[in-house]
Amino acid sequence: MSGTFVVVGGDAAGMSAASKAKRDDPSLDVIVFEKGEWVSYAHCGTPYYVKGEVEKLHDLLSLSPTDIEERGIDLRRNHEVVAVDTDAETVTVEEPDGTTTQPYGDLLVATGGRAVTEPFDGLSLDGAFTLHGLDSAAAIRAYLTPPAEYDPDDVSEYADRDRIERHADASPPERAAIVGGGYVGVEMAEALTAWDLDVTLFQRSEHLLPPFGEAIGKQVADHLREHGVTVHTGTAVSAIAGDGRVDTVIHDAGHTDVGIAIAGVGIRPNVEFLDGALDLGASGAIATDAYGRTSEPNVYAAGDCAEALHTVTGDPAWVPLGLTANRAGRAIGKSLTGEPEPVGEIAGTAVVKAFDLGCGRAGFLDAASAREAGFDPVSETITAGSRSGYYPGAAETTVTLLGDRTSGRLLGGATVGKDRAAKRIDTVATALEADLSVEEVQRLDLGYAPPFSPVWDPILVASKVLAGRIESES
Amino acid sequence: MSGTFVVVGGDAAGMSAASKAKRDDPSLDVIVFEKGEWVSYAHCGTPYYVKGEVEKLHDLLSLSPTDIEERGIDLRRNHEVVAVDTDAETVTVEEPDGTTTQPYGDLLVATGGRAVTEPFDGLSLDGAFTLHGLDSAAAIRAYLTPPAEYDPDDVSEYADRDRIERHADASPPERAAIVGGGYVGVEMAEALTAWDLDVTLFQRSEHLLPPFGEAIGKQVADHLREHGVTVHTGTAVSAIAGDGRVDTVIHDAGHTDVGIAIAGVGIRPNVEFLDGALDLGASGAIATDAYGRTSEPNVYAAGDCAEALHTVTGDPAWVPLGLTANRAGRAIGKSLTGEPEPVGEIAGTAVVKAFDLGCGRAGFLDAASAREAGFDPVSETITAGSRSGYYPGAAETTVTLLGDRTSGRLLGGATVGKDRAAKRIDTVATALEADLSVEEVQRLDLGYAPPFSPVWDPILVASKVLAGRIESES
Repeated sequence: MSGTFVVVGGDAAGMSAASKAKRDDPSLDVIVFEKGEWVSYAHCGTPYYVKGEVEKLHDLLSLSPTDIEERGIDLRRNHEVVAVDTDAETVTVEEPDGTTTQPYGDLLVATGGRAVTEPFDGLSLDGAFTLHGLDSAAAIRAYLTPPAEYDPDDVSEYADRDRIERHADASPPERAAIVGGGYVGVEMAEALTAWDLDVTLFQRSEHLLPPFGEAIGKQVADHLREHGVTVHTGTAVSAIAGDGRVDTVIHDAGHTDVGIAIAGVGIRPNVEFLDGALDLGASGAIATDAYGRTSEPNVYAAGDCAEALHTVTGDPAWVPLGLTANRAGRAIGKSLTGEPEPVGEIAGTAVVKAFDLGCGRAGFLDAASAREAGFDPVSETITAGSRSGYYPGAAETTVTLLGDRTSGRLLGGATVGKDRAAKRIDTVATALEADLSVEEVQRLDLGYAPPFSPVWDPILVASKVLAGRIESES
Repeated sequence: MSGTFVVVGGDAAGMSAASKAKRDDPSLDVIVFEKGEWVSYAHCGTPYYVKGEVEKLHDLLSLSPTDIEERGIDLRRNHEVVAVDTDAETVTVEEPDGTTTQPYGDLLVATGGRAVTEPFDGLSLDGAFTLHGLDSAAAIRAYLTPPAEYDPDDVSEYADRDRIERHADASPPERAAIVGGGYVGVEMAEALTAWDLDVTLFQRSEHLLPPFGEAIGKQVADHLREHGVTVHTGTAVSAIAGDGRVDTVIHDAGHTDVGIAIAGVGIRPNVEFLDGALDLGASGAIATDAYGRTSEPNVYAAGDCAEALHTVTGDPAWVPLGLTANRAGRAIGKSLTGEPEPVGEIAGTAVVKAFDLGCGRAGFLDAASAREAGFDPVSETITAGSRSGYYPGAAETTVTLLGDRTSGRLLGGATVGKDRAAKRIDTVATALEADLSVEEVQRLDLGYAPPFSPVWDPILVASKVLAGRIESES
């Protein structure tokens, strides 16, 4: 490469790329433009900051601006890239002192995503939030904290203090609405319940956590109810209303009076500023190849704004998650100073905690999507112990596996249970990457000892049952 | 097949085969000869019965004799097979009423292993034990229990009551010696410490848990010491001594006075009764092919008495563990009534708990063995968090991975830590089965959420570091 490596966006993908490139080639000029204050923070930790399990906001920072500068990276916060000219190989930057143009040798677009705010109004009211970014997490916690107990030191120097302190002055709510039953909704149900709020969760579709399949969605809804959360599925919210401050949520089944409303109805890639400079994929995110390269020379994209290739199909997919961003950023940083490094495929692997339940998913779980991808899906769901039945702490673990009747290949799976169920999905994710058949999975030599697993790990039990079904039907 | 399916040995491999064959073909005659009283029990659970976490001995039974008979299996306990005639296709059986001959159509040898008792004397003394089988577990617990507190109902109807009750009458010991620092030794150190005994563990080689590698062995030794266990490595025991009852253990460094001694110095396959009827492998266990077939027609072998093929090398190996036995038994039972079913390869995957530490291992960890198998091994050890660093409960997880410098292939790995470290080895075991390279492992899409894993799972961190080293050295 020649010329400056310019990174747009200072979070997971951008900072991973900048750090790796600079480490592998210290002579390289690396500039990171970040439109906000925060860089390199753990978005996935914000629900636990709101809950109070993570004490300080800056505990969620992976790197401080000082760390980044010590790495020799030219970090420019409050610098927003508003246009990319791939012919001139420049970006246009709006910064506190005006607008400038920065040439690039290589460019990484890592602008992430933003919380969807449609289709309802009212998110500008006090007490109405999306959870995206540290400022919103800080504002929510400040709003939940009684003014007398609010400690400004909870918020580190980089946060949007005005907004947060305005929220800290408000009297704490007693009832909460969560709009959306995906990751954010489920995690926030746990977080708000910890504040002793009366929590109602609204999910437009028929079950929670749609990517985890119907069985897990129902189990999580039941579990939320056991913890006192009111769960309305199949119930769309049309508005968050109030006079200055949120006081009600209007939905299909009527309205519910609340003092706080949190919307978590998905995210959208930040690609509008590109204005056609890079090709987008069918998902609306930036199209990339196996190395994170976009449609334009010397321009890469990674993280929540970019597509990646799916492990099972090899086709482009958009699954905005933390590891994908970190991994792709690092690979691109490495490619810039050496041999091209694949960014890695995505199996859509995800794990989520819902109170005491852990859930995992990877690959295809939805038969309709699998059929659309050209497979002949067949699935089985089993329940087995997390440990030997006689060993203390053993808990039911439910595993669903989906396979292809024609080829016998494993297509995906999901896990749920109260004892170490979530990370059992890693076996499925690894098997998907390796194109293992369901029959091969049932013969995996997984670890067995009574405190950790029954002789037949739940993944093995599920694969035995599914392999038997595939065998009998083919 | 034609004729009776005769199974020698009524534990994991034997009962799995008998059950599967009978389920798939209810018209098949299945006879299981078991020389003892106990069938189908969880050997790996015995330390936790001794410890007291498993209350009743019969909690360790997977199937009762009644269950087995209800499956239509002709179970004959106290029947010892003393010879096999592969020409006549018969077995000779010593039973309570005399000696008989039983013809077989197919034969499965599943005679398991027995605890090694050499090279020291004294295991016939009261208070000296090996831990192999439910009777020895019951005897140890009875011996540890003050006579006034001993409840005969702790022992179910099938146990060797005479031996157990003789031990129950003895005054409980205050000091214990454990001879051998393998699985049994480490698990028994935890179990005996729970009885408030002063425990000394002797290990002949330089570190505990040799199959887990030196780093884990040392960490486990330190952890045992933190829990009050005295650990002597590089110290061989020459005798367990006493007058009727054990009172001292004589070892390289002198002698130690104890009231109980437990020897766990390995197991040996029960193959002597075959008297050359079947070929043995280099390990001394019965040689088998990918389908569990031995050197003789219609004769199978499975479980602790048999070899299996190693996942990494494809060569025969002997790693007597519970899943291997269950899996092979089931596959053989299935093969008898349908298409031949592979018994599955073994990666030597094992997990073990040592007080609060969990340890896992799979494949090759020892560079010398890997070189002997034709590889050019290179390894790296890293320490990473079990969860996101800011999330409560995160604990250090140490991962060692071994790869082949020439091909880049992953050869094995080990994990250790206080928070869910053990089962992280399943990712390694799955990758080994799929012949993944270290580079492919570093790109696995594993599950990430703060309560369950850092963004980069410890396995990914280790594979990144090892892949970098392989790349830089090749």
